[in-house]
Amino acid sequence: MEKIKVVQMGLGPIGNKETQYLLERNTVEIVGAIDSDPAKAGQDVAALAGLPPIGVEVSTDVEQVLRRGGVDVLVLTTTSGLASVHGQLAQLLPYRVHIVSSCEELSYPWQTNHDLSARIDRLARDNGVAVLSTGVNPGFLMDFLPLVLTGVCRKVSRIRVERIQDATFRRIPFQQKIGAGLTPQGFAEKVKAGTLRHVGLTESIQMIAASLGWTLDRTEDIITPIIAERQTRTEAMEVKAGDALGVQQIGRGVVAGEERITMVFRAAIGEPDSRDRILIEGDPTIDSTIQGGVNGDVATCAMLTNAIPSILKAPPGLRTMADFAPHHFL
Amino acid sequence: MEKIKVVQMGLGPIGNKETQYLLERNTVEIVGAIDSDPAKAGQDVAALAGLPPIGVEVSTDVEQVLRRGGVDVLVLTTTSGLASVHGQLAQLLPYRVHIVSSCEELSYPWQTNHDLSARIDRLARDNGVAVLSTGVNPGFLMDFLPLVLTGVCRKVSRIRVERIQDATFRRIPFQQKIGAGLTPQGFAEKVKAGTLRHVGLTESIQMIAASLGWTLDRTEDIITPIIAERQTRTEAMEVKAGDALGVQQIGRGVVAGEERITMVFRAAIGEPDSRDRILIEGDPTIDSTIQGGVNGDVATCAMLTNAIPSILKAPPGLRTMADFAPHHFL
Repeated sequence: MEKIKVVQMGLGPIGNKETQYLLERNTVEIVGAIDSDPAKAGQDVAALAGLPPIGVEVSTDVEQVLRRGGVDVLVLTTTSGLASVHGQLAQLLPYRVHIVSSCEELSYPWQTNHDLSARIDRLARDNGVAVLSTGVNPGFLMDFLPLVLTGVCRKVSRIRVERIQDATFRRIPFQQKIGAGLTPQGFAEKVKAGTLRHVGLTESIQMIAASLGWTLDRTEDIITPIIAERQTRTEAMEVKAGDALGVQQIGRGVVAGEERITMVFRAAIGEPDSRDRILIEGDPTIDSTIQGGVNGDVATCAMLTNAIPSILKAPPGLRTMADFAPHHFL
Repeated sequence: MEKIKVVQMGLGPIGNKETQYLLERNTVEIVGAIDSDPAKAGQDVAALAGLPPIGVEVSTDVEQVLRRGGVDVLVLTTTSGLASVHGQLAQLLPYRVHIVSSCEELSYPWQTNHDLSARIDRLARDNGVAVLSTGVNPGFLMDFLPLVLTGVCRKVSRIRVERIQDATFRRIPFQQKIGAGLTPQGFAEKVKAGTLRHVGLTESIQMIAASLGWTLDRTEDIITPIIAERQTRTEAMEVKAGDALGVQQIGRGVVAGEERITMVFRAAIGEPDSRDRILIEGDPTIDSTIQGGVNGDVATCAMLTNAIPSILKAPPGLRTMADFAPHHFL
């Protein structure tokens, strides 16, 4: 079987991890690498990921990498935002490469920005390729997996998803990302600036609702700090009583005046009972828990990698994980 | 949106339940019903399912129901065996109807009987329709769902699935089906006669192995009684000490000399901790449990019903749930 030719674009922490995962598979071959950072240009993409070089240099120039053709799939791990990923897709799609992306807002953009979604869809169709954003969340645990579980349901009245993570032993950037150690005021400022937010709850709610045929009145996405009752210490930091241990983010999907979809995302130092839980109230009711939860970094890159063979078979256009969902409740 | 025209064939307990579920959906319409039992002929299919009549009479004659055309999907709930379902499919497929079936041995027949599978596949292709067997087990809990969960895995080394059911409060036919109340000798005789067996463990193992790219050396499927240590009483029966409370069935898939897939199916009176558990040893390891387990009868009919819209979009041929699996580990 011929190997799938892949270009890796966006060489931050997720992109470099993705390089490692791609190199483990004998079904794919990295044939190019792109990053906008001139400091990375000319470096070997595998070396950048901490592995022995493979003879593929990072380029800052999309055209230089793609104009020679022969690329099947481009893995795009550059941004969380729809507007910026649209700009990149507009440049990439004319080279007729399928795209697998980790861009959270691209995971289910149809309701948030129908116009931009339609433009991406058209561009992909015109070039005969498929675009998919996936990952662990959004893309799996809080949307796709609940949808799959509804496949055995005769009735579905309500869906609640909980993703609870103890950040005590996670890396420092993760602890910082969730606001651990911030004063309530510092936390509020970061929320206001939009830099302390898990992107994707709204997209997950919209994907579920649209797939089940539920029309949303509105969605909510509310971020609050989880406050330390007493002084708490990890290897990496100390959190004073009254400061934030981390974040709680609640998403709600309201259908005909009733909250029918609830998402609880909580990541904090010392948070008990890490888990990914899905509760489908229906017939039958399904109460499914992944004990300990799923590590997000590993799972996102695994999902991007596992999606590569599927995207080649997908119909052209802007695809979402909902398109890959099998028989779900409708 | 026009309703999907469905014929229900096979009006035993599952078929009658399926009638109820079909009638609940406003996306489908029952336009015919078939059963080989002359005693059911002429009865209203809804009345047979305990509901107000809908004006659709049961017929014993396939040709009479299908020759006028206009049928999109036939739901086939007649048999567990591949050979007998093949005979039925040979009669049905020339009428160019898609088939959604609950036939366990049809769920993944390629390795057990490649010849017959290829003939069904050819017949379906020649008639431009798709054939799928699904349900809760096989079809979901012990094969499809594990496969879906591997989507977030970088590596998978071993898969263990447990389906554990307390039969205390189940209906009497279920308690009898699992051998409750039998002496060890009576149990052994039923096993020998092939009448006390959950059909599908081997198919589930084969579906997982083929999808992950694992070549099986061999599979095992071992049935033993779960013996009562003391006299046990339910509303419906009394089991003496030394007699069977129910059944344990263990499936194993051996790859390169190593047991890499293990299925534990246990259904017995007083069995503690009902659950559907999937343990994927890999990176990350995933330990997922549906507490209380999923009720098989409800879930099977729900899955058959939910599969109807999907089968219309499936490519012609003999499909399996593996074809509907999204990005899984490979």
